[in-house]
Amino acid sequence: MSTHTAVVKKFINDPETVVPEALAGIATAHAGLVRVDLANQLVIRADAPVSGKVGLVSGGGSGHEPMHGGFVGSGMLDAACAGAVFTSPVPDQMAEATKAVNGGAGVLHIVKNYTGDVLNFKLAAELAEDDGIEVQSVVLDDDVAVQDSLYTAGRRGTGATVLAEKIAGAKAEAGGSLSDVAGICRKVNDKGRSFGVALTSCATPSSGTPIFDLPADEIEVGVGIHGEPGRRREKMKSADDIVEEMLEPIVSDLGVSKGASVLAFVNGLGGTPLIELYLLFNAVTKNLDARGISVTRSLVGNYITSLEMAGCSITLLQLDDELTGLWDAPVKTAALRWGA
Amino acid sequence: MSTHTAVVKKFINDPETVVPEALAGIATAHAGLVRVDLANQLVIRADAPVSGKVGLVSGGGSGHEPMHGGFVGSGMLDAACAGAVFTSPVPDQMAEATKAVNGGAGVLHIVKNYTGDVLNFKLAAELAEDDGIEVQSVVLDDDVAVQDSLYTAGRRGTGATVLAEKIAGAKAEAGGSLSDVAGICRKVNDKGRSFGVALTSCATPSSGTPIFDLPADEIEVGVGIHGEPGRRREKMKSADDIVEEMLEPIVSDLGVSKGASVLAFVNGLGGTPLIELYLLFNAVTKNLDARGISVTRSLVGNYITSLEMAGCSITLLQLDDELTGLWDAPVKTAALRWGA
Repeated sequence: MSTHTAVVKKFINDPETVVPEALAGIATAHAGLVRVDLANQLVIRADAPVSGKVGLVSGGGSGHEPMHGGFVGSGMLDAACAGAVFTSPVPDQMAEATKAVNGGAGVLHIVKNYTGDVLNFKLAAELAEDDGIEVQSVVLDDDVAVQDSLYTAGRRGTGATVLAEKIAGAKAEAGGSLSDVAGICRKVNDKGRSFGVALTSCATPSSGTPIFDLPADEIEVGVGIHGEPGRRREKMKSADDIVEEMLEPIVSDLGVSKGASVLAFVNGLGGTPLIELYLLFNAVTKNLDARGISVTRSLVGNYITSLEMAGCSITLLQLDDELTGLWDAPVKTAALRWGA
Repeated sequence: MSTHTAVVKKFINDPETVVPEALAGIATAHAGLVRVDLANQLVIRADAPVSGKVGLVSGGGSGHEPMHGGFVGSGMLDAACAGAVFTSPVPDQMAEATKAVNGGAGVLHIVKNYTGDVLNFKLAAELAEDDGIEVQSVVLDDDVAVQDSLYTAGRRGTGATVLAEKIAGAKAEAGGSLSDVAGICRKVNDKGRSFGVALTSCATPSSGTPIFDLPADEIEVGVGIHGEPGRRREKMKSADDIVEEMLEPIVSDLGVSKGASVLAFVNGLGGTPLIELYLLFNAVTKNLDARGISVTRSLVGNYITSLEMAGCSITLLQLDDELTGLWDAPVKTAALRWGA
């Protein structure tokens, strides 16, 4: 039995103009923080390029908001490239973003491991280098659910991307060199692992119908952020049991042991109420506590979403003093904001 | 034809413990900002009571997160009382909250106009006054969709509550007297109007099935935040047309005319993707622009929700220098944070 065969109602005017209309909304809502290049579908830090600072560019398909446009601002990204929904931006967009944020200290591309994104960012880096801009790229592949997947060779890049953008952004803000900033971004990928679970499917504006079908009493364990299949389907079960099933592969793959400190990131996929995300976060801290692992930093909310999909992902980042300090550093973006 | 008859899957352990488990998650996630009184289901500003400052208390049924617990912190609420899902907290909780935040300058109760909340806050105020605490109450009734409703005599209190809590919180932080703070809260209610539209229903954890049934191709125009019926049901239509239908009664009831400045608040009801909320916000600014009304401040996101309901509400607040200045003042809560 499935409940997800009907058209999913959406607040849109025309499937073709969803992304530019949303970007226009972002431009007005966050005018002091960012400017929007509508022709290239870029969200750019208002004061970019910042002279002497390493520029940070990320991007990917739309439909994952607030990622990445909501992470543009001081202490995080300098620009985000928006593709069509669930579709990689093209190299020209990325190259334009790279030019727009080049303050003379080089530009870091933060890339989630999807075949289209990886290829297009590679071409964009070559274009930028032809223009004399030094570019380094870090590919995020933190999702332990599956090796190889729809759209991906190797592991998918998911929740750790948010943490990498925050932490690398802080390093750049503090005057780090391009190698420093790329290095800390790689460290977040090395020390971060994620796992996602879907309770429902989601629909792109252009199709209007769910991208996969999930029986009413089942969940997709290990789902990707575009609904890619996970490890298996299971009957729905308790939050504590789901959290255990998600944490086990994360903790085991990360190799964290008793006494470790972690940042726990409980992320909603878009359609899950915040009350459930806080309940899940409580289940995560209890579970890790029983393993002797301390949650010393946290993030709870909808940060890397799959349109209206009900579900969640958990990311753990093993912390040390350097990562903790960079996480705590001030950030001022539409979606993440704290400190001075 | 309806698609909403199946059980709605939720990340919970036991319907009876959803609220305390989520509150425990909030306590850990926001430890520096708030403390949680689990016995009374209160989220309290970490440094409460603040001596000499008017205390602000709000509350209501759970299921509307981040409202109200996410609005506790400096520059906004001092305490939030959480009831069961979609159920008013009881007077004892509210009285305990009032005591906990009484810094000697009196306490303001910010109450949404639902019969249970109004009655219980009234009893709580009497209990607090028996303890020698001066209390004033402001009832919010900004929803222009319907007069009288399920759970409500008169208009319902919805989106303007978020703005009232922010603005009254800033007034209290700036040293305003209890009368001043109550006065500015009343002004927000006078100058603010809201209207909601649902695309889907939602399910409480205890029932697990949708609280009302909405045909797959229809929308509920004028819906309340507990799924209360609105003005009518209509066939789904474009975002621009829906926005026009929402703004017309708001603008007309508020009596704003050409040249006015407003804060436009586009709020998601929980299950609507952020990309659609930004698209709606763009539609709102275009619509108001054509009416000669300027959007000079804004808020876009999920702030007053109905569990996983897909839908949105729009609130307009007619601004003057006083309201604008208080809106811009620093705030540091889990859900709203800006400034120093």
